[in-house]
Amino acid sequence: MSVTVPQGFRAAGVAAGLKAGGAADVALVVNDGPDAAVAGVFTANRVKAAPVLWTQQVVHGGAVRAVVLNSGGANACTGPAGFQDTHATAEHVAAALAAADPALDLGAGEVAVCSTGLIGERLPMTALLAGVDDAVRTLSPAGGAPAAEAIMTTDTRPKTTVTQGAGWTVGGMAKGAGMLAPALATMLCVVTTDAVADSETLTAALREACRVTFDRIDSDGCMSTNDTVLLLASGASGVTPAPGELAAAVTAACHDLAQQLIADAEGATKQIAIEVLGAASEDDAVEVGRAVARNNLVKTALFGNDPNWGRILAAVGTTAAAFEPDSIDVAVNGVWVCRDGAAAEDRSKVDLTGRDVTIRIDLRSGTAAATVWTNDLSHAYVHENSAYSS
Amino acid sequence: MSVTVPQGFRAAGVAAGLKAGGAADVALVVNDGPDAAVAGVFTANRVKAAPVLWTQQVVHGGAVRAVVLNSGGANACTGPAGFQDTHATAEHVAAALAAADPALDLGAGEVAVCSTGLIGERLPMTALLAGVDDAVRTLSPAGGAPAAEAIMTTDTRPKTTVTQGAGWTVGGMAKGAGMLAPALATMLCVVTTDAVADSETLTAALREACRVTFDRIDSDGCMSTNDTVLLLASGASGVTPAPGELAAAVTAACHDLAQQLIADAEGATKQIAIEVLGAASEDDAVEVGRAVARNNLVKTALFGNDPNWGRILAAVGTTAAAFEPDSIDVAVNGVWVCRDGAAAEDRSKVDLTGRDVTIRIDLRSGTAAATVWTNDLSHAYVHENSAYSS
Repeated sequence: MSVTVPQGFRAAGVAAGLKAGGAADVALVVNDGPDAAVAGVFTANRVKAAPVLWTQQVVHGGAVRAVVLNSGGANACTGPAGFQDTHATAEHVAAALAAADPALDLGAGEVAVCSTGLIGERLPMTALLAGVDDAVRTLSPAGGAPAAEAIMTTDTRPKTTVTQGAGWTVGGMAKGAGMLAPALATMLCVVTTDAVADSETLTAALREACRVTFDRIDSDGCMSTNDTVLLLASGASGVTPAPGELAAAVTAACHDLAQQLIADAEGATKQIAIEVLGAASEDDAVEVGRAVARNNLVKTALFGNDPNWGRILAAVGTTAAAFEPDSIDVAVNGVWVCRDGAAAEDRSKVDLTGRDVTIRIDLRSGTAAATVWTNDLSHAYVHENSAYSS
Repeated sequence: MSVTVPQGFRAAGVAAGLKAGGAADVALVVNDGPDAAVAGVFTANRVKAAPVLWTQQVVHGGAVRAVVLNSGGANACTGPAGFQDTHATAEHVAAALAAADPALDLGAGEVAVCSTGLIGERLPMTALLAGVDDAVRTLSPAGGAPAAEAIMTTDTRPKTTVTQGAGWTVGGMAKGAGMLAPALATMLCVVTTDAVADSETLTAALREACRVTFDRIDSDGCMSTNDTVLLLASGASGVTPAPGELAAAVTAACHDLAQQLIADAEGATKQIAIEVLGAASEDDAVEVGRAVARNNLVKTALFGNDPNWGRILAAVGTTAAAFEPDSIDVAVNGVWVCRDGAAAEDRSKVDLTGRDVTIRIDLRSGTAAATVWTNDLSHAYVHENSAYSS
C-alpha cells in the first residue's frame, strides 16, 4: 500500500510503454488534502536532470498536490528540450487531474516530476502523456502498490514502508538499485503522511531523516543526476504531532526504505554495516565509514568471503579523520582481527558465509559513532552495469 | 636491464621463498657511486607500512647506497615488531654488502627498504635475510632484469624503462597492478641515473615527474600503504645535465613505467585515457579526470563496450571544477556523443572494440588541460581481488 496508507492520498501505477519489456513505468501520487505541505531533498550532483531542476522550484513554492514519476528514462542531459518535456508533463498532469475532478483545481506549479532510467535520451512524450491519462483514470487509495512497482528499474522488488504514529501515519515508496551513494543515489522516494505539519516542519524532519539514512548508504560510490526524496503531508488525520515525533517516524520510514535499497543493490551478495566507533566527531565517523564503503578492494574481498582487514586499514588511512595508525581496532563479524593497527585474533575465526556482514572500526580517538551501509562488489555488479543501457 | 643500464649500478633478483610459488621475491639494487644522491616520493596514505616509515628517514638522510625490495609481504600494519623487521633487514643488507666488498663501508641508514604483498602479516625474516645474502652474492651490472621480476606480485610482466641523455642515462623498474591510485599506488619504483645531481635537484625532478605520471594513473581508486618511488644518482657518467633536462628524462622514464602499470592493471581489458580540456585550471582538469577514472559505472560501461556518456557527465557533476552542465562536450574515441551537455553524434558510431579508449571532456571554462589514465572494471578484477590474499 505504501504511499496510500496515510489518509488523503491516492496513487496509480501503469504501463505506458517507456520500458521495452512492457512493465509498469508511470506512477502518480495525488495528495487530496486538505493540506499540500511538502519538503524535498535532491541530488548534490551538479549535473541535475530536468525533473530535478523543475521539482526543486515546485517544492520551493511550498505546495505539492501531485507527483508524477516515470522509469524508462532519466530525462537527464537532455538540454532545454528535456526541461520543456518535464514542464509539459507537469502541465498535462495538472490539466488531467482538474478535468477528472474540478475540485482539485491545481496548477502545474503544484506537480512534482521525477524520472529514472538511462541518461541522455529524450522521453517519448506521446507515450508518457498517454500514460499520465491512464494513471489519472486508475487513481485509487489502493494504488500504492502499483505505484511502487512502476518506479522500478533494475530493482528486483518494490520498496515500501509504513510507520504508525498516534492517530497519524507515515507511508513511503522508493526505488534505486545502482548508483547509490551518499547525498542520495539513483533513487526516487516519496514519503507521505496524514499528519498536520507545515512545510518548514516537514523540511526539518526530512533533512534529519536523510542525514542518517539515505546519506549513509553507499552502494557503488556513484552519485546520480536524478535523486529526489519528497515528503508530502495531507493533514487528513487532523492530528498535529510534536516535531520530534514526526521526525522520528519519517526517519524510521527512510531507514526502512534505505535498508531495502541496499539489500537489493545491483549484484550484491553481502549487506555490509560499517560501524565506526571512538571517533572524535560524527563527521569523522561518517568519513571513515564512507571511505571503507567505497573501497573496491574491501568490497571484492568481502565478495570472496575474505576478512581482509589490511584493506580496511588502508581505506581508513586515506581519510582526514582523527586517529593514530597504531591505535585502531577492527572487528569483522565480531572477531577482532586487528588491534593496535596490527593482526590480533585469528582471521580464520571470521564466519563470512552469511549475507550480513558487520565491520566495526574503533578509532580510539573520541566518543562519536556512525554507521554506513554498503554491499559487496560482485561479478553480477560488473555484468549488470556493463550490459545495462536501458 | 632496467635499473642497471646507467653506470655505477648493480642489481640482483632471487627467490627467497616468500612467495608460495617459488618465484623470485627479493631484489637488491646497489649504487656503487661515486655519488649516493637520492630522492623519494611516498604514499599519501596515513597508514604507512614499516618500510615506508623507515625509507622516508633514510631518504631524509640524503644518501642511499642500496635498496632492498621484497614481494610476498607488505610488512604493513605489523606494529613495532614489523618496524624492527625492516630495520634488521637494512642492517643485514649493509653488513652483507660490507663483508662482500669492504670498500663499500655503508651503514644501515643508507639502505632503503621496500615491501609489497599482503597487508597485516609479519615477514618470514629467516627466509628474507637468507635471500638478501643470496642477492648480495649474485649482484651484477646485468641484474636489472631479474630485479624487475623479483618485485612482481599480481603483475603479469616486469616493467622496465631506459631513457638516454647526452652522455648520461636514466633507467628504471616498477611493479604494481592493483591498488593503483593517485598519490601513488601499490607500486614500487626505482629509477636510477648515472648523471651527476645532488639530492635537491633529484627531488625537484622526481616530484615534477610523479605529478604528471604516477599521480595521474588511477586503476581502482584505492591508495596503498606501501607506495614508494626512489630516484638514485651514481654520478658515474661524470656529466651534470641541466636540471630541466634531467627532469624531462626522469619524467619520460616515469611516464613509460606508469603506462606499463596501467596496461597491466588487474583484470583490465581497456586502457583508458581521460583527456580533460578547456578547464579553468590544471587542478580542475585533474579533479575531473580522476572523478571519471574512479567511477565504477563508467568503468563497467566501457568494459561492456558501451559509450555511456551520461555516466561520464554524472561523474563530472560530482566535482567542484568550474563548468556549466549545459556547456560540456564529450567525445569517446573521437565521436562527439555529447555537446552542450546533451546528446549529439550518434553513439553507435563509437568503435570500442579495441583496447585503447580515449575520452575527451571539454569543460569550455578555460585553457588548462590534463590527462588521467585508468582502465575498465571487469569480471577479472572482481575475481582477482576476491581471490587474492597472498
